[in-house]
Amino acid sequence: MKNLISMRDLKPEEIYHLLSVTEKIEKGEIIPDMQRKLAALLFFEPSTRTMFSFDTAMKRMNGDTIIMSGTKNTSAKKGESFADTLQTIAQYSDIIIMRSPTEGAARFASEVVEIPIVNAGDGANQHPTQALLDLYSILKTQGTLKNLKIGLAGDLRFGRTIHSLTQAMSLFGAEFKFISPSFLQMPDYIKDDLTLQNVKFDEIREMNGNISDLDILYVTRIQKERFADPEDYEKVKGSYVLNRDMLSHVKDNFKVLHPLPRVDEINTDVDNTKYAYYFSQAKNGVYTRQAIISILLGEV
Amino acid sequence: MKNLISMRDLKPEEIYHLLSVTEKIEKGEIIPDMQRKLAALLFFEPSTRTMFSFDTAMKRMNGDTIIMSGTKNTSAKKGESFADTLQTIAQYSDIIIMRSPTEGAARFASEVVEIPIVNAGDGANQHPTQALLDLYSILKTQGTLKNLKIGLAGDLRFGRTIHSLTQAMSLFGAEFKFISPSFLQMPDYIKDDLTLQNVKFDEIREMNGNISDLDILYVTRIQKERFADPEDYEKVKGSYVLNRDMLSHVKDNFKVLHPLPRVDEINTDVDNTKYAYYFSQAKNGVYTRQAIISILLGEV
Amino acid sequence: MKNLISMRDLKPEEIYHLLSVTEKIEKGEIIPDMQRKLAALLFFEPSTRTMFSFDTAMKRMNGDTIIMSGTKNTSAKKGESFADTLQTIAQYSDIIIMRSPTEGAARFASEVVEIPIVNAGDGANQHPTQALLDLYSILKTQGTLKNLKIGLAGDLRFGRTIHSLTQAMSLFGAEFKFISPSFLQMPDYIKDDLTLQNVKFDEIREMNGNISDLDILYVTRIQKERFADPEDYEKVKGSYVLNRDMLSHVKDNFKVLHPLPRVDEINTDVDNTKYAYYFSQAKNGVYTRQAIISILLGEV
Repeated sequence: MKNLISMRDLKPEEIYHLLSVTEKIEKGEIIPDMQRKLAALLFFEPSTRTMFSFDTAMKRMNGDTIIMSGTKNTSAKKGESFADTLQTIAQYSDIIIMRSPTEGAARFASEVVEIPIVNAGDGANQHPTQALLDLYSILKTQGTLKNLKIGLAGDLRFGRTIHSLTQAMSLFGAEFKFISPSFLQMPDYIKDDLTLQNVKFDEIREMNGNISDLDILYVTRIQKERFADPEDYEKVKGSYVLNRDMLSHVKDNFKVLHPLPRVDEINTDVDNTKYAYYFSQAKNGVYTRQAIISILLGEV
Repeated sequence: MKNLISMRDLKPEEIYHLLSVTEKIEKGEIIPDMQRKLAALLFFEPSTRTMFSFDTAMKRMNGDTIIMSGTKNTSAKKGESFADTLQTIAQYSDIIIMRSPTEGAARFASEVVEIPIVNAGDGANQHPTQALLDLYSILKTQGTLKNLKIGLAGDLRFGRTIHSLTQAMSLFGAEFKFISPSFLQMPDYIKDDLTLQNVKFDEIREMNGNISDLDILYVTRIQKERFADPEDYEKVKGSYVLNRDMLSHVKDNFKVLHPLPRVDEINTDVDNTKYAYYFSQAKNGVYTRQAIISILLGEV
Repeated sequence: MKNLISMRDLKPEEIYHLLSVTEKIEKGEIIPDMQRKLAALLFFEPSTRTMFSFDTAMKRMNGDTIIMSGTKNTSAKKGESFADTLQTIAQYSDIIIMRSPTEGAARFASEVVEIPIVNAGDGANQHPTQALLDLYSILKTQGTLKNLKIGLAGDLRFGRTIHSLTQAMSLFGAEFKFISPSFLQMPDYIKDDLTLQNVKFDEIREMNGNISDLDILYVTRIQKERFADPEDYEKVKGSYVLNRDMLSHVKDNFKVLHPLPRVDEINTDVDNTKYAYYFSQAKNGVYTRQAIISILLGEV
């Protein structure tokens, strides 16, 4: 592994290795030491949460970061090309972690510079570190990635996290329930892929009553702005909100995941149940990113 | 001590303990090591000075910070609740230091998360780390907190620092002079408190000629904007400006404190006198905050 | 050396010492340890590149930074004087690195505070750390600073980097070619200086055909905005663009330098030739700044 650009670049054994390193880091069996090492965090699109997670990952390994976020790159304003910005940053840092609104930006970066690139989100395309922390959260709570029944709820059309996770879990024999309004359903190209791989999936329009056979329910936010008519939003939104009452018949190993931030698609009365796992999932993100950085820098 | 939210939560023996740890840190008798430890600095209201002081405190202890300031929290923009923001940040950091324009925000935070909260100012309410660094500055320059004569000058009505300091010093037998324009005088609820505790205080309208019996003069800024009529401001402002000439009859142990930033309420000709202590006071802030963080994280 | 304000303050032997420390740091023969030490980066004028370089320099020495950039200083907004801001920052940090749009700001700062000041650019005046990293790059690639033939191309009128470098290299017996449009030529006061020192220089209007006898070509950007008439810009701009074809007859030791960011004054087809040195030059900036900080803090 020289870069982490897309989940599609990873073979199952590479995923297992990365999750195994993550577990050892969480348990303190591996304690990477990044003293005097620097990660450059280039966030051309703002994302407090993801940036904090990487910043934390590096600093808790005794390393440090240099941060360029939003429109703060005064060199770009002077007319510098993206390639030159990258080549200059590469003189300063050991690894570049970048988020961009442009699909393919991370791949391009990996072709310009010699140091490792981590894709922290490139437009609607890929967000592989989120997918990997989701996989780690599933593995940790279920003891396996194999043959699980996974519900995905909310906006399945535009969610790059959802797409990466679906593709990744299909490698491990998962069965899916896609729970969404019809016009926010899973894109055809992903469903076609699943069909080709003989992966089972159902598409349903209602969360309530459909979660008792699931191992994992992965909830995402539905943006009001996606609806042409606000009344349509009001009509459907209740069907994609999880609350405590709906948890009475779930499996004992059932866990609710969410990439955060949450708005109201998971009622706060779920937070204190043993099924809520979304804040722990955020913490898992730090360990996962530490494993990714450590592997790419050859520290483990 | 699990959190530091308000001076009213602290007993005198806790204050003494904290100031004693501060002194040991300043003298190098305690050298906390915060390697791989992180303080989250959440500044929902900007404050360069206070943020720098905490940032410095943590980094000089070999620790590090993650910083969210101003409107940079993109998750809040997406509709995330304050409680969720706090719970997520708590996955990343060991302690949260927060400033907010909202009274009670720090107390609320301490009820939401498990990790320690330090209130770095919540609206007009409390700013306990400022009060503690003021107490440390008084103790260091006077050798005692007991039975001192303290002048407080400037805006006594809106100054949360002034209020916290008055309440704290009244525990140690202080006597006060309140020096302010009438409409910026100390609020009744504080004066009533002092009267109940048999604490002596005078209210005067003029700094000059009234400072020769003081041990400490604590000066604050009068904001022009507080005056309905700009002419009223012009009339009174001279009465609350300290200059070198006024220092001819002060006590030998007399010290001038100011929370900074200063505008023109202390003439710069005071800076080179032995009575000026405001820049050293800023440095004391770093030691005091190191002590607070160290105690809350169980390092001392 | 107590501060680094201007190249004019440095004697040749001081420059040699500094470059020698830089080389030892690059080679790992000196490994400064700045644990618990803090540099304050005060960038009153934005400059991503220079700030990153200093931030990197400090963090790679195991130290850390506190950063105030742009208009973020809320104390200044409240009416605090520049001198007070500096005196307060000096309570928090070991060294102040500052960039300001105001000529003389760094010199003023050095008179206000006791801790070392590094001038990271003060308006059109000085940018000594850039000049020193340029000198280090010349020394490293040529093996000597003495008796070199140096071409300076682009905007020679407003480039403070160009001016500092010319003055510095004239101390070492350099001979110059100034390549620029007439109205962006080297200012008279610098040419008069050179004449007084018997330094040879030519002024020419065309890069092509004039670089085969050079050891170093230092290219800078020509800003379109400098031209009153945009058509004039279009006419001349081609004369100041370096491309690969022009490199066929250069000397074997020839190197192209550029302070970056580049726009189009060096064609990217030059990047992969052995003559391109501008990205390595950026990396040299980190070592040079580490040497400067280490010397000023008495660590070497």
